[in-house]
Amino acid sequence: VYSKLPNVGTTIFSVMSALANEHGAINLSQGFPNFESPQRLTDLVCDYLQKGYNQYAPMPGLPELREAIAGKINLMYGVEVDPGSEITITAGGTQALYCAIAAFVRPGDEVILLEPAYDCYRPAVEVNGGIPVIYELKAPDYKVNWDHVEALLTPATRMIIINTPNNPTGTTLQTTDLLALQHLTLGTDILVLSDEVYEHLIYDGASHQSVLRFPGLRSRSLAAYSFGKTFHNTGWKIGYCVAPPELMVEFRKVHQYNTFAVHRPTQHALADYLQDAATYQSLPDFYQQKRDLLLEVMEGSRFRALPCRGTYFCNFDYSGISDEPDRVFAHQLITEHGVAAIPVSAFYTSGRDERIIRLCFAKTEETLRAAGERLRKV
Amino acid sequence: VYSKLPNVGTTIFSVMSALANEHGAINLSQGFPNFESPQRLTDLVCDYLQKGYNQYAPMPGLPELREAIAGKINLMYGVEVDPGSEITITAGGTQALYCAIAAFVRPGDEVILLEPAYDCYRPAVEVNGGIPVIYELKAPDYKVNWDHVEALLTPATRMIIINTPNNPTGTTLQTTDLLALQHLTLGTDILVLSDEVYEHLIYDGASHQSVLRFPGLRSRSLAAYSFGKTFHNTGWKIGYCVAPPELMVEFRKVHQYNTFAVHRPTQHALADYLQDAATYQSLPDFYQQKRDLLLEVMEGSRFRALPCRGTYFCNFDYSGISDEPDRVFAHQLITEHGVAAIPVSAFYTSGRDERIIRLCFAKTEETLRAAGERLRKV
Ligand SMILES: CSCCC(=O)C(=O)O
Ligand SMILES: CSCCC(=O)C(=O)O
Repeated sequence: VYSKLPNVGTTIFSVMSALANEHGAINLSQGFPNFESPQRLTDLVCDYLQKGYNQYAPMPGLPELREAIAGKINLMYGVEVDPGSEITITAGGTQALYCAIAAFVRPGDEVILLEPAYDCYRPAVEVNGGIPVIYELKAPDYKVNWDHVEALLTPATRMIIINTPNNPTGTTLQTTDLLALQHLTLGTDILVLSDEVYEHLIYDGASHQSVLRFPGLRSRSLAAYSFGKTFHNTGWKIGYCVAPPELMVEFRKVHQYNTFAVHRPTQHALADYLQDAATYQSLPDFYQQKRDLLLEVMEGSRFRALPCRGTYFCNFDYSGISDEPDRVFAHQLITEHGVAAIPVSAFYTSGRDERIIRLCFAKTEETLRAAGERLRKV
Repeated sequence: VYSKLPNVGTTIFSVMSALANEHGAINLSQGFPNFESPQRLTDLVCDYLQKGYNQYAPMPGLPELREAIAGKINLMYGVEVDPGSEITITAGGTQALYCAIAAFVRPGDEVILLEPAYDCYRPAVEVNGGIPVIYELKAPDYKVNWDHVEALLTPATRMIIINTPNNPTGTTLQTTDLLALQHLTLGTDILVLSDEVYEHLIYDGASHQSVLRFPGLRSRSLAAYSFGKTFHNTGWKIGYCVAPPELMVEFRKVHQYNTFAVHRPTQHALADYLQDAATYQSLPDFYQQKRDLLLEVMEGSRFRALPCRGTYFCNFDYSGISDEPDRVFAHQLITEHGVAAIPVSAFYTSGRDERIIRLCFAKTEETLRAAGERLRKV
């Protein structure tokens, strides 16, 4: 059989989670919480299931939920977004990203990716005939040189994909970055796809620099968000996309024929749940405590923590422990020490290996302490 | 903004449902039940939500659910399907169809569509650069002449899409049709995408002719199924795809980066619910009664029913009532008579109009009787 994606294998997240289960390791690899979705939200979903809201939601999503999201965006970023024409509910952040790429990337179009990058961008670009143009960022600060991005632009450049807070690096883009990107794309046809699924997971008092805050950028951007990441229920697969009307029209053409609509009872429940802003405003504190706990339990280990300013991932340099490639080291960590991590080379097309592993701290205190105990022995 | 899908508008189903709501019409247009998902199934979903099964399901779907589906397939079609390598759970039948097309259709590939056709095939083909090759079938029997299909084959033919039981026509393919298709594609690279979302909705004692029953066809087919259609919860967006391992590997590459996985609590619930075969074996009788009720309440009207052998749609010729184009007539039906239907021309790329409307009979007895009363006055 002919393959449109000859280089795609099973995603590293599935591979490491499966290995973790097989060996009974503590799983800090794949990014998902090991604690529960808020009880009130779960109860609301059950209520709507039982009250009989079980037929098709409208294609762009429930109006009440889109209204609630517009309210959240206004509160967080001080901007107005029209729920009718600028928001679409999706089957998770991943489906938002996929549809944005499918709607705009044509065969031969170039798409700039900053690596290390979450692993869904490249295959989505490739299956649509696009050509990934890769800019490798380097540990420990993964700083973007926007002049370098500019040098990568060609008449074929169709899209630049950014991700802040960044998975896997835990870095965040600053105002100066977004202004540079805005400047770079001004007066061009280049679109920006902004993966902001960790918008609420940002630490040390910083605030998230969404593309929505920058009018000259927002007008050509599609931004992807995830309730699974926000409200600790990655298994529900619900997120949304925000884009200006001209772009959203095209996005919806694909969404309409990709999944058509999304789980209706969950949409009703989220619309209610979002009425209380504390549900999301409490998140930076909640996760910062977990980050700090992970850093605390890793003190006295031979791993060296890289800065973590956002997401629920923290990276660790293990070059003081081993010279093995990161995939080998991650494998040993599972089999010999009972902890699963993600080798960061998996996020580079080139397999660039800086002897760094990614740990997910969306875990209970008990789990993080137990993992720390094991990792301090390595 | 450049559009990859310049000819796509809002799907006719959203348009007609919105119009029905606006005018308070009885909505027999968009295909969804106006009665509830089985209580036991809803209770199971709530149980799993509450028990805490809310993080990522495995990418190809929950193993227990895939096992249960393999059991159902074995019972229904007498064939063995490997749940590990031949079944993937999807975000509804639509996402299964989209991924199958995205995984295999390359720019310039020709895809044969038999029209009237459900409206998601063509845009999915086009957004992937494929070229729809259309064969128009005609009322009242919509018979497929396979010699004609053969004449449409070229070296660029990549896929043939079939749909049985057929939406919108309510016809079904017979053993002779599938044998002809098998013969046609034997020894070629042509894939068959078989939309079988109405597999359980088949009447008058007939049995569904799935591609899975025909080994020479199954080896090159991807088949799409829908729990929303089967268990009266179109708003849950859960279905699955069945394909041989070599094809499923490619399908999963796209699925993995399109939605990654599907609502986990629902997968647990369906795995349990499918243990009782009566849950789906009872469906032909259940829906046949509704079809017969619709036919009964339409007796004495000036509409002429076309044969309905499957699906929850029945078509009616209104040429004895009006000469108006079907879109105009459908509009009048809503505004003047308070009943919403789908104009069948919407399912033809050419807009071929045979003065036929489609009515959905997945409705309560009360609704069908009320609609009949109104339609008998037309
Ligand atoms: C879809 S599984 C991957 C989850 C995740 O976001 C991560 O681990 O980076
Ligand atoms: C996705 S809305 C369309 C529902 C349906 O299957 C139909 O009405 O034909």
